[in-house]
Amino acid sequence: MLVTLTTDFGTSDSYVAQMKGVILGLAPSAVLVDITHDISPQDVRQGAVVIDGAMDAFPDGTVHLGVVDPGVGTARRGVAVLTSRGIFIGPDNGLFSAALERVQVLASVSLENPAFHRCPVSSTFHGRDIFAPAAGHLAAGTALHALGPPAGRLVRLSLPRPRQVDGGIEAHVLLIDRFGNLILDLRQGEIAGDPARQTVAAGDCRIPRISATYADVAPGEPVAYFGSSGRLEVAIRDGNAAQRLGVRPDQAVLVRATSS
Amino acid sequence: MLVTLTTDFGTSDSYVAQMKGVILGLAPSAVLVDITHDISPQDVRQGAVVIDGAMDAFPDGTVHLGVVDPGVGTARRGVAVLTSRGIFIGPDNGLFSAALERVQVLASVSLENPAFHRCPVSSTFHGRDIFAPAAGHLAAGTALHALGPPAGRLVRLSLPRPRQVDGGIEAHVLLIDRFGNLILDLRQGEIAGDPARQTVAAGDCRIPRISATYADVAPGEPVAYFGSSGRLEVAIRDGNAAQRLGVRPDQAVLVRATSS
Amino acid sequence: MLVTLTTDFGTSDSYVAQMKGVILGLAPSAVLVDITHDISPQDVRQGAVVIDGAMDAFPDGTVHLGVVDPGVGTARRGVAVLTSRGIFIGPDNGLFSAALERVQVLASVSLENPAFHRCPVSSTFHGRDIFAPAAGHLAAGTALHALGPPAGRLVRLSLPRPRQVDGGIEAHVLLIDRFGNLILDLRQGEIAGDPARQTVAAGDCRIPRISATYADVAPGEPVAYFGSSGRLEVAIRDGNAAQRLGVRPDQAVLVRATSS
Repeated sequence: MLVTLTTDFGTSDSYVAQMKGVILGLAPSAVLVDITHDISPQDVRQGAVVIDGAMDAFPDGTVHLGVVDPGVGTARRGVAVLTSRGIFIGPDNGLFSAALERVQVLASVSLENPAFHRCPVSSTFHGRDIFAPAAGHLAAGTALHALGPPAGRLVRLSLPRPRQVDGGIEAHVLLIDRFGNLILDLRQGEIAGDPARQTVAAGDCRIPRISATYADVAPGEPVAYFGSSGRLEVAIRDGNAAQRLGVRPDQAVLVRATSS
Repeated sequence: MLVTLTTDFGTSDSYVAQMKGVILGLAPSAVLVDITHDISPQDVRQGAVVIDGAMDAFPDGTVHLGVVDPGVGTARRGVAVLTSRGIFIGPDNGLFSAALERVQVLASVSLENPAFHRCPVSSTFHGRDIFAPAAGHLAAGTALHALGPPAGRLVRLSLPRPRQVDGGIEAHVLLIDRFGNLILDLRQGEIAGDPARQTVAAGDCRIPRISATYADVAPGEPVAYFGSSGRLEVAIRDGNAAQRLGVRPDQAVLVRATSS
Repeated sequence: MLVTLTTDFGTSDSYVAQMKGVILGLAPSAVLVDITHDISPQDVRQGAVVIDGAMDAFPDGTVHLGVVDPGVGTARRGVAVLTSRGIFIGPDNGLFSAALERVQVLASVSLENPAFHRCPVSSTFHGRDIFAPAAGHLAAGTALHALGPPAGRLVRLSLPRPRQVDGGIEAHVLLIDRFGNLILDLRQGEIAGDPARQTVAAGDCRIPRISATYADVAPGEPVAYFGSSGRLEVAIRDGNAAQRLGVRPDQAVLVRATSS
């Protein structure tokens, strides 16, 4: 069974490896894939966007383990959520919000059964002691309902959404990637009319059309296009748009029909 | 068979990948887990602490390959050490000292049999040419004693240890993690009396008790607790203790019974 | 089947993981090894040198997937190249130039058959939508020629080569590794005479001989030696040669017989 891992642990300590050791101790044939461990510390929202963006590339039935967990050691619950696309395991703090909006939730449990916890459970590392064991046991064939009682309503983050404004659509920067590309909340189906006749205003930059790819503009020029995640992206060809445009996460970007 | 890798090679060059290629060429079904490759260059002591901290999360029989090897190309030996918990392979320079203190050593060999080296052996990369082949051959079923003669006494690092001082225990900073948390050499069983009635003095900060978890204090406050490794840790909730307290590896931290 | 991945994507975004999800969705038993994802953005030449340097450690038949792809979305082709040592998959931009010089090319195809693309193909992420599917399908048993028509002549980079100059050999810095070691284009068989009687002039530093290993000099001293890749390297023992000598990629280093 395929198990992905997304955390804010970095890879210079052994925390991620400890989780993997626990999973493989329980399910030796599990195949582990790191999504990233460079989520900004405790940035649940960034984790939610990254997990959502990665999910579609994985086959149905994949287990997605996510640990961005500022509330570890408090009363926040741990959950496992079975969906039409795969199983999500981690803290019930909204980390899977964005992904869960796009799949069908079939069942969810609160990870309360101590028989499936590592013993003893530390108060600071539920990733190793509760979430990794849950992933390992599920990968080894344990039934979801054995892990704990039904979870009921899950915590949801309020993520930005594109909204209609006077004369256009206000989109928002969801994520800035390593290249400085801005990934917006606006999806391909959500604009009306010809992309080539939309103007995109990001920071103090006005991009006169939505292109098919960044190769459509000259090096150094700003460009807007629907990217590999199906979302509108703003980039500088061969450059760093976030730096050049001075844009930050959540910032509004206006998309409007080009006046003719 | 599960094989872990711990090095100071970083991941921007191909050195780690070359070791993995050699292992998988010999043992195609080996499962590889990176512990970390971000040990500070040539910091054998940090490597020893990290391997020790990670070991308990892995199942018995795991092969732990470690390469932090300032003496490569000198007369220092390469060794494989069979223990009650797993096999340790790497330079005989103390890298496994901390781990070996907590397990039973069953046998050890000096990796001198050239039949199990990569050919030719470079003088600068025994990780690829001697240690990875040893791991691969062991994972593929070769007997330990085939790899070379008994190793006899192994090099041991002198790591700090908590010591009784006037009115308390002097602990020491073993490791600083990515979050800036201080991990000390003091283990949970080594304090006398109620943790809640111990004062911890780290840098110029006096923490009035040992808490159950960092969620027991307000954000921005310093907190001491027994962490996921079973060791005393000092953190700033949602902050960086190493920076805030100006503490460095090996620095002393005093733990004493709270005067009532 | 073993599949390696080399990209300039970094690991803080989910791009690499998306490629892995696609490969494992098609070939669940593929074994994936990261070479590195820290190639400098769009530095095809660095990618070429790194892939060439890593290749020899992997068993015959390994699939090497490389994505350093400034031309994604333009007319540049994607290719899969079957060789005597393994299969190379990626953009036809010279990324495999250095590796292909040392192996026998048996067949190559242009990745044009849409039946083996992810659907839809994004214009910015052929790594996920064309190259990863090609690797996955090949790992799952698809024949090379099914992926597209013969590729014919492939793009080659012009990499520096050592050249005879008055009184010696002009070598060049191919790569600077994490430790600041300089890896040159000169291979062990390419010098005439005794290595111990060659002087190496790098930056403003004159090294009086080629040693067997960096342990042959005192800490802090510069040293030249044939490294683990079979190429001449220049290092500072326990130091950073690139910084100390002020040397950059492509810079010339002169190797000449020591005047006696």
